[in-house]
Amino acid sequence: MSRIISVEDIDDLARGSAVLGTGGGGDPYIGGLLAKEALRRYGNVTVVSLDELPDDAVVACVSMLGAPTVMVEKLPSLDEIMRPVKELSEHYGRPITHIMCIEVGGVNSTIPVAAAAALNLPLIDGDGMGRAFPELQMVLPTLYGVSASPLSYADEKGNVGVLRTVDNAWGERIIRVAAVEMGCSIMLSGFHMTGATAKKALVKDSLSTCTNIGRTIVEARADKQDAVARVAEMLGGRVLFGGKVVDVERSTSAGFARGRATITEGANSLTVSFQNEHLIAELDGSVLATTPDLIMVLDHESGEPITTERLHYGQRVRVIAAPADERWHSPEAIEMVGPRYFGYDLEPHRFDGQVRPGRSISEVRIAS
Amino acid sequence: MSRIISVEDIDDLARGSAVLGTGGGGDPYIGGLLAKEALRRYGNVTVVSLDELPDDAVVACVSMLGAPTVMVEKLPSLDEIMRPVKELSEHYGRPITHIMCIEVGGVNSTIPVAAAAALNLPLIDGDGMGRAFPELQMVLPTLYGVSASPLSYADEKGNVGVLRTVDNAWGERIIRVAAVEMGCSIMLSGFHMTGATAKKALVKDSLSTCTNIGRTIVEARADKQDAVARVAEMLGGRVLFGGKVVDVERSTSAGFARGRATITEGANSLTVSFQNEHLIAELDGSVLATTPDLIMVLDHESGEPITTERLHYGQRVRVIAAPADERWHSPEAIEMVGPRYFGYDLEPHRFDGQVRPGRSISEVRIAS
Repeated sequence: MSRIISVEDIDDLARGSAVLGTGGGGDPYIGGLLAKEALRRYGNVTVVSLDELPDDAVVACVSMLGAPTVMVEKLPSLDEIMRPVKELSEHYGRPITHIMCIEVGGVNSTIPVAAAAALNLPLIDGDGMGRAFPELQMVLPTLYGVSASPLSYADEKGNVGVLRTVDNAWGERIIRVAAVEMGCSIMLSGFHMTGATAKKALVKDSLSTCTNIGRTIVEARADKQDAVARVAEMLGGRVLFGGKVVDVERSTSAGFARGRATITEGANSLTVSFQNEHLIAELDGSVLATTPDLIMVLDHESGEPITTERLHYGQRVRVIAAPADERWHSPEAIEMVGPRYFGYDLEPHRFDGQVRPGRSISEVRIAS
Repeated sequence: MSRIISVEDIDDLARGSAVLGTGGGGDPYIGGLLAKEALRRYGNVTVVSLDELPDDAVVACVSMLGAPTVMVEKLPSLDEIMRPVKELSEHYGRPITHIMCIEVGGVNSTIPVAAAAALNLPLIDGDGMGRAFPELQMVLPTLYGVSASPLSYADEKGNVGVLRTVDNAWGERIIRVAAVEMGCSIMLSGFHMTGATAKKALVKDSLSTCTNIGRTIVEARADKQDAVARVAEMLGGRVLFGGKVVDVERSTSAGFARGRATITEGANSLTVSFQNEHLIAELDGSVLATTPDLIMVLDHESGEPITTERLHYGQRVRVIAAPADERWHSPEAIEMVGPRYFGYDLEPHRFDGQVRPGRSISEVRIAS
């Protein structure tokens, strides 16, 4: 990635982020629109790698929280995007010096670009997950003891809040109900940390990685190559299955988009269960991959990432699995983001680049 | 009321507040305990009448928000009581100089005494309603354009928030869901206003009135007089009915205690519908009194106020109605606290000191 992000980078960044967003993180087209608008209005954004980040930098995330199904219908204004950061800077501590992405995703990798442009602040080439997850506390910084608090949030109506909670799980609980009441999608800023902490706690170079993935998809298509296979290769992953989407069950409940998609090819059938993000892939009842590893659904031909809210009957897709950041496999991380946390009676099935079916699960119980 | 509140005043204040709390506002015994503990520890509280309040005073309320059924089981600590005021002073504007009661009620008239003692601040002899109501925006200051924001809140676990909303109804919506998530009962501070505004917007002398009512009940009992009749007379009200509680339906939903009590005497039956507070009194299907006028249930013999959560089968009670503060009868006020707001298909039946039955309502629909 160049040392700046300009309008020309956004499509690749948004596309690649939606791939690593593993079905969640919002629609790349929507997120891209916002980032482009901000870049045109305020100029390019300077990108800082974790290596060159000053230890005394004051880093905070900017992100959208809510159900992606709602995010795509409720595009925030630039004013709304800036408000939580201003609130955080003004009322709780020193001014924010660097913006970071809390996760990788179509919206949550591009909204920070818009925020950085509008606030004239540099953006860190990194993020808090290396993928997307549905709940606030599910970030690597939580494992490093970084508090999400103070956490500021705003909606499009002008309501603004600041929250300090005893732990990040309480932050999730309180901000989630507020978000639901405020219309199922809000802007937030938090996870205030020093540059020194950010260097340890974030995933390095993730915006560059996303931009490369996005560019690779476009180039492969132009070269008549297999875009899906190229993405799998770049991520050290494998194509698990290809077929036609024959069924998508979904509901938006408690501020999340939950559901399951079924993809068939001949007599075989792969199901992908999701809560904002894809969590479990099962082939004919045998588990092939689980959270925290990455499960991605791409268009069979074009290689374009398909977020859960865009999944629909009749699409020809391929499903890729790839290993998550190593740190997601620690026991504390598995407790936070493993299959059991999401209500599946299942050990994590660690993906090692091979396709080895795990045990069959008779019943996949969706947490209510 | 003397110019100070001491431990000796608390029982009368709590008892009288629970009368004017019209079934809500929490249990006077619980509220009294907290106030006494604070007065013993920090000394007496200075009481300031609205007449002598400086125009440039910075006034804010301290109150508990949630379902009274839960409040009685989750007594806040003094630290928890002080935290929202400190938060408000620290982060949003000038230090608070005077504490006020947002409503009259067993808990919400005594918790401000505890807060004033612990914070060493004077307490205003007045409140925002002259009674109790279940929702945040339902205060006379709302009718004077006073914003509840910034609104700070805290729970017993150590979670703290500050909220600024576009209007007080949004404050209610967001803080209510937060309160439910935080355990159905939180402490809050807000309705920050100047002394000049407080003089117009508050109900005058309400702590004195409560203390007098509480004292009258005790004295009447000691003198073998009719305590219930004395209270009705003091409030310019009437005893509507006396009988035995034969049925209480109740549920705690969406952070409120909702329900209906039936009281019978011979062939006649009075029902009192409530949402935290008593809202409608009907005798044999004819409406006798409605919100915003005061409907109070007292023990038949002792004259002790009975809050909705203490209502139970077999109690011998009398039900009093009395006129609310004149300002509650304006069209804007009726829109905010009239029977229709609470889901009853009914015009307000204004109480004028006489008992005149209104039209029969075939169906009382409880708002969900």
